[in-house]
Amino acid sequence: MTYFKTVNKVNYEGAASTNPYAFKFYNPEEVVGGKTMEEILRFGVAYWHTFTEDLSDPFGTGTAIRPWNQYKGLDLAKARVEAAFEFFEKLNVPYFCFHDVDIAPEGDTLKETNANLDTIVAMIKNYMKDSKVKLLWNTANNFSHPRFVHGAASSNHADVFAYAAAKVKKGLEVGKELGAESYVFWGGREGYETLLNTDMKLEMDNLGRFFHMAVDYSKEIGFDAQFLIEPKPKEPTTHQYDFDVASGYAFLQRYGLQDDFKFNIEANHATLAGHTFEHELRYARIHGMLGSVDANQGHPLLGWDTDEFPTDIYSNVLAMYEILKNNGLGNGGLNFDAKVRRGSFTPEDLFRAHIAGMDGFAVGLKVAQRLIDDKVLENIVDDRYESYRSGIGLDIVEGKTDFHQLEKHALELTDITNKSGKLEQIKATINQYLLTTFVK
Amino acid sequence: MTYFKTVNKVNYEGAASTNPYAFKFYNPEEVVGGKTMEEILRFGVAYWHTFTEDLSDPFGTGTAIRPWNQYKGLDLAKARVEAAFEFFEKLNVPYFCFHDVDIAPEGDTLKETNANLDTIVAMIKNYMKDSKVKLLWNTANNFSHPRFVHGAASSNHADVFAYAAAKVKKGLEVGKELGAESYVFWGGREGYETLLNTDMKLEMDNLGRFFHMAVDYSKEIGFDAQFLIEPKPKEPTTHQYDFDVASGYAFLQRYGLQDDFKFNIEANHATLAGHTFEHELRYARIHGMLGSVDANQGHPLLGWDTDEFPTDIYSNVLAMYEILKNNGLGNGGLNFDAKVRRGSFTPEDLFRAHIAGMDGFAVGLKVAQRLIDDKVLENIVDDRYESYRSGIGLDIVEGKTDFHQLEKHALELTDITNKSGKLEQIKATINQYLLTTFVK
Amino acid sequence: MTYFKTVNKVNYEGAASTNPYAFKFYNPEEVVGGKTMEEILRFGVAYWHTFTEDLSDPFGTGTAIRPWNQYKGLDLAKARVEAAFEFFEKLNVPYFCFHDVDIAPEGDTLKETNANLDTIVAMIKNYMKDSKVKLLWNTANNFSHPRFVHGAASSNHADVFAYAAAKVKKGLEVGKELGAESYVFWGGREGYETLLNTDMKLEMDNLGRFFHMAVDYSKEIGFDAQFLIEPKPKEPTTHQYDFDVASGYAFLQRYGLQDDFKFNIEANHATLAGHTFEHELRYARIHGMLGSVDANQGHPLLGWDTDEFPTDIYSNVLAMYEILKNNGLGNGGLNFDAKVRRGSFTPEDLFRAHIAGMDGFAVGLKVAQRLIDDKVLENIVDDRYESYRSGIGLDIVEGKTDFHQLEKHALELTDITNKSGKLEQIKATINQYLLTTFVK
Amino acid sequence: MTYFKTVNKVNYEGAASTNPYAFKFYNPEEVVGGKTMEEILRFGVAYWHTFTEDLSDPFGTGTAIRPWNQYKGLDLAKARVEAAFEFFEKLNVPYFCFHDVDIAPEGDTLKETNANLDTIVAMIKNYMKDSKVKLLWNTANNFSHPRFVHGAASSNHADVFAYAAAKVKKGLEVGKELGAESYVFWGGREGYETLLNTDMKLEMDNLGRFFHMAVDYSKEIGFDAQFLIEPKPKEPTTHQYDFDVASGYAFLQRYGLQDDFKFNIEANHATLAGHTFEHELRYARIHGMLGSVDANQGHPLLGWDTDEFPTDIYSNVLAMYEILKNNGLGNGGLNFDAKVRRGSFTPEDLFRAHIAGMDGFAVGLKVAQRLIDDKVLENIVDDRYESYRSGIGLDIVEGKTDFHQLEKHALELTDITNKSGKLEQIKATINQYLLTTFVK
Repeated sequence: MTYFKTVNKVNYEGAASTNPYAFKFYNPEEVVGGKTMEEILRFGVAYWHTFTEDLSDPFGTGTAIRPWNQYKGLDLAKARVEAAFEFFEKLNVPYFCFHDVDIAPEGDTLKETNANLDTIVAMIKNYMKDSKVKLLWNTANNFSHPRFVHGAASSNHADVFAYAAAKVKKGLEVGKELGAESYVFWGGREGYETLLNTDMKLEMDNLGRFFHMAVDYSKEIGFDAQFLIEPKPKEPTTHQYDFDVASGYAFLQRYGLQDDFKFNIEANHATLAGHTFEHELRYARIHGMLGSVDANQGHPLLGWDTDEFPTDIYSNVLAMYEILKNNGLGNGGLNFDAKVRRGSFTPEDLFRAHIAGMDGFAVGLKVAQRLIDDKVLENIVDDRYESYRSGIGLDIVEGKTDFHQLEKHALELTDITNKSGKLEQIKATINQYLLTTFVK
Repeated sequence: MTYFKTVNKVNYEGAASTNPYAFKFYNPEEVVGGKTMEEILRFGVAYWHTFTEDLSDPFGTGTAIRPWNQYKGLDLAKARVEAAFEFFEKLNVPYFCFHDVDIAPEGDTLKETNANLDTIVAMIKNYMKDSKVKLLWNTANNFSHPRFVHGAASSNHADVFAYAAAKVKKGLEVGKELGAESYVFWGGREGYETLLNTDMKLEMDNLGRFFHMAVDYSKEIGFDAQFLIEPKPKEPTTHQYDFDVASGYAFLQRYGLQDDFKFNIEANHATLAGHTFEHELRYARIHGMLGSVDANQGHPLLGWDTDEFPTDIYSNVLAMYEILKNNGLGNGGLNFDAKVRRGSFTPEDLFRAHIAGMDGFAVGLKVAQRLIDDKVLENIVDDRYESYRSGIGLDIVEGKTDFHQLEKHALELTDITNKSGKLEQIKATINQYLLTTFVK
Repeated sequence: MTYFKTVNKVNYEGAASTNPYAFKFYNPEEVVGGKTMEEILRFGVAYWHTFTEDLSDPFGTGTAIRPWNQYKGLDLAKARVEAAFEFFEKLNVPYFCFHDVDIAPEGDTLKETNANLDTIVAMIKNYMKDSKVKLLWNTANNFSHPRFVHGAASSNHADVFAYAAAKVKKGLEVGKELGAESYVFWGGREGYETLLNTDMKLEMDNLGRFFHMAVDYSKEIGFDAQFLIEPKPKEPTTHQYDFDVASGYAFLQRYGLQDDFKFNIEANHATLAGHTFEHELRYARIHGMLGSVDANQGHPLLGWDTDEFPTDIYSNVLAMYEILKNNGLGNGGLNFDAKVRRGSFTPEDLFRAHIAGMDGFAVGLKVAQRLIDDKVLENIVDDRYESYRSGIGLDIVEGKTDFHQLEKHALELTDITNKSGKLEQIKATINQYLLTTFVK
Repeated sequence: MTYFKTVNKVNYEGAASTNPYAFKFYNPEEVVGGKTMEEILRFGVAYWHTFTEDLSDPFGTGTAIRPWNQYKGLDLAKARVEAAFEFFEKLNVPYFCFHDVDIAPEGDTLKETNANLDTIVAMIKNYMKDSKVKLLWNTANNFSHPRFVHGAASSNHADVFAYAAAKVKKGLEVGKELGAESYVFWGGREGYETLLNTDMKLEMDNLGRFFHMAVDYSKEIGFDAQFLIEPKPKEPTTHQYDFDVASGYAFLQRYGLQDDFKFNIEANHATLAGHTFEHELRYARIHGMLGSVDANQGHPLLGWDTDEFPTDIYSNVLAMYEILKNNGLGNGGLNFDAKVRRGSFTPEDLFRAHIAGMDGFAVGLKVAQRLIDDKVLENIVDDRYESYRSGIGLDIVEGKTDFHQLEKHALELTDITNKSGKLEQIKATINQYLLTTFVK
């Protein structure tokens, strides 16, 4: 059946279009910096926000009107697959992502749950044959069920650890079956509610053991997806162990896992941790750890994960700048871990919102590429740090100096002349690029 | 003498210009919606940030390079006036604003302080004769001197209350002398460090008394400037009484002052209070209390007043939307209560930063006017609230109904169909307007 | 049937007790400052958190184990009433509070919903005959159902306004029927998700009209409960109109409602708005607007409403200080708008948590009373503000001065000597009081 | 001369004392858990906050009344040394800490600065001979002077890097000369104002090189102090590289420095980074990286570093719990990186505030020791994690299992029974311990 009756295939119509179901900036075939937009942006649809989410919040029940909600149980799961592939095709998006419980209902036993998964995975595989859409990544939801109330791999209960392991094992098998390019670990409850009853060392050690076993098993079955950790500082926990990229990187180094993992960076998680999105991307990039992106945005005045569609073009430009400097995302992509607002409850809003996000990142891409082509930031940086390309600066960078020599140099200095950082002018320049890249 | 030797008069050169000392979007003579940009935007330069500020911060001494710093005392004050008028002319800005202590040094006694003020005010008045620049507003700094450690009008010490009153009295006289269009009250220390030693009722009552005496005196001397309260939630105090526009409005109503005051709304103060800039403007506008604007921006991840130049065009568009819907700012204007970053320490940065802000608000103006011309938001609102234009909705609005009738109506309802709020699409539309108003 | 089989009546056993089901500090019959603890504290149990809440969160399904969950529909509602009165008796608590939907399920029509309510209200009334427990306040839940997605009295849809009115009308009738001492308005969705599609003026005007109709109807039926507005800055909305007490007070004055309403102040809402709990209490108190308290606490590092049981004794002392200075709460009380953590999912945790909160506030009461008896803060305040009891200070307070006289006074001042605020010493004193009021 | 004329030696007088210049809880000779309070707590006075700080803030000039301010230049520096040792003796504190610029004024050249330092260091060394007070740690201020506007070791200017190196070289020599037990690196400006002009990789690499050279030089001169990094997320920078302990630990591992450094953890820096104080202590402790503590507290509603004296006994108990579980702080101590409020400007307030803090941590120590003696938290943890001491849990911990076995275990599970986390009861227990450890 057709679930989205009022929307046809979304095409590029240009900035002047007023068609709410057309791209204004995202033209998948347009070449930017040597590749097509589609190849660079690698957009993915998040199954949970688009096909499972009911738009409830802590103070209200769900508002979402979804034509597939006439079904129940496994039939609902099947209807969602049908709706999903209709959506992917109409939106012309190359990737999707899911948690196990998004696509198939949990059964009364793990065995039954796995059987449900097998049914739906087979159906998805079949649909993928006739579609260009591919699986960007999958993951196991080890946080929603009450058994995970105290964590999963960091639970105080060994049975829960085992259960979580079994779910990830299945997830790796599913990922292999469907050709997932990456595999994500978001430790929604891998943290604590209070230190007062928590053995943080045991929990972190167990988390390290868990990840090693996951690496071992993926090697065993020949699943060569990129493993990704997705940091988030808090919510639902009071404090999560993978607070941000830096704390995740500390963890990976501590447990000898830094060569097996990269990061899946979410904009809204970055800001909740006190960083800009571009900070997290930059930090990961310069450490060779930038894997994939959960493309969304938060609200700067709200203290929880709002998971909004990424329409802030400043943020999108700076994100795409980091991604382009990283030579793209490799096995990763731009997954819309974003949900429509509770007040945007119609099926059509799902299209409007994804179009808003895809256009938003297309703008980011084009402006970032233009900034790079014109070496706007590169020239600023080259000029600012020029003292490290000769003399004492070069000695520092090449490791040829020590405190004796540096003191000698300092004692001989008469005056140090710093240059203005010119932040205001740089921001104005970014504005000029933003405002003049597109015409009506 | 000439203080800004490297910068000539700033002209409009259009978006393609790479001249850091040219306007790219602000064209003072361009007509937008029936008035010139200069008439609508009414830009003001803040004396304190531009001529007095040394760019120190709590962890470092000042970095600002200012040619007038070769002078001391009253000579320094005079040099600043010269520099200020050179700056105003070169920047082509129609207004400026100051605190008493910005323009003239405090003496050993109040009498001496007032004499210093008289000297400089006379000099400024003389300069104004040959200049188009006017005084947007002035104010008294009743927070920097140690005597104000526990507040000014809300001090626990009656002598301090009296001293603050004397300074405001002088400020009103100076404002009249220089033709100030408004007069501002920012109660930097009118609040508390701790409730544990504070008589909040007495302090608020005294604040009310103080404002009434200020109103009385301004009437007495025939100073017809608009009085403005500038809310800020905290910093330097732990908690300020004028936390935001709403709390200021509660205060004004409580003390019968609502007809004598409006609000001077600062973007960075709004966000520190947990509101968007546009929220504070809207709240003031619909209550008839929007007086003037301190145009700046904060950093969403920093918890203190960063007073950055307003380059965020989203914020500028929404601010200008409110201002245009208010039929402008009346006696108010857009005062750049903004300072260059500590790393932007050259005299030239003062120009670059003001140009960035002026261009930023010119963009805001043009995009907001285009949104209004096309009734983009008005049509959305009209459609959303249409139920209040007939039937039970009209009865509600006209005050013709009660709980009995409403219950009767509700009991007869079969189903209520809400419409989507379409926020994602609206945001995408704003992006389209932003990105297509200007060409290179 | 018995729902809490493992817990007997909770008695006072003193600080040394290790019985998790005994009070250590709350002794209902103990006289403090002339009244019993029970009379002063007026504790209330929140029906929603204790009997309806399933401990789900945005990332997980409910964990709560509740013996009454074996029932469905109206049977479940009845079982909850039985459990509630068992709980009230065992906990020895004098009050409870509820929303309409907490006690009875919504039907397919408003008529059916009201019938369900009538059934349960009759049952509750019957139970109350044999119980000392009274209804502190009731309220209408006008935020959870999807019809309220865009607000209730501030909805853009007149039908929703009418529906909300009908629910409040019924709520007032229920309140009268059960002898509620107050009636609460928490406008969970009376605010906006975005200003971009919002007519703030119409919404606020409608809110004003709604409250006037509620006042009129309560007078009509002779329901003399105290009306209370409960401010909250945000969540679930992006911005709520009753942001804090001050903005609520601005609203009430603007619409001529200040004599008909007081405030129900929640600790966690205060902190989300950027205020301490005691600030909101103090502000309400000195304006004669302190009505009742939602006793809970937030987590200072989490940006959402955590609604924790109030165990922070600093906060409890300062809250009780304000309440005692207010001569108590009148028709209000200390309602535990607090929920057990998701990890505290057993029925027994409901007792443990309420005991923790009741003991916490008993500590607050005793320490606050001791501070008042010793005039600790009163002496500090008297000393600090002594200058307002004679001379120019008295003239200020008595309204006998003006800017002329104040300037004259200031010009004659040679030096102003401020006194130290001694905050560190005051805090140490509070610690001494906290640590030495109780013995093991 | 005598600087603190009104205060004599501070003695322990017990909780009932009302003498503001007496300890109520800190009894240096009292044995707690086998050591004296003095030996465990190792209190240090921060030279900068106590002898150099003028209590200015971004909106006001200094209010501090300090008898030594009658002097200038090197004489002022000498007077401060005299005052400091008078203060140390009277307060009976065993340690102090300083930055280079706190104790001696900068000269016109580095040579002159070093000469000034030599003069004062010799004077301090002389005073130390007759005093029990020792140097807990020293450090170089590489953030206040304008030359550090863009950073020190992470500056874009190689001359500044060299200058910073020369200052640290001197600092290491001074530390050795005065027998410092640790040496601290707080990178006040080692971060960025904006990523737009920043080469983060080069800056972090240079920071790594700088630390290696510092390690090399300290080994060369035989200075065996513990090196400490002090994380802070931001302020004065927009983003500092040592954001928190975890990011510092990532950095140290990345650059092979983890064996040469530990962390100096500040409470207020922890909360600014979104962590509790105890979180940062715990994280450092379980990684063997807990070196020293900057004992202060922030204000939960203020977004900047308020550096208040640590009077929050909850926080102090949890901090002391971590410190006791760490077997103390080794070469570190509890340095009061805390300043009196701007309103607490008298010399006497310096005593009152330190006494408040010392009493506050003495309370923390005694309650924490009692909790440990009674195994309150240990028993909770043992019970919660018991599943890891046998069966599949033990296999997990001993690394004897894999995903195959874990899946097998999970498939065989019928039901998983989690235990309540009992947070509310644990918090109530902490309250009981707090309230019953001391008597009047």
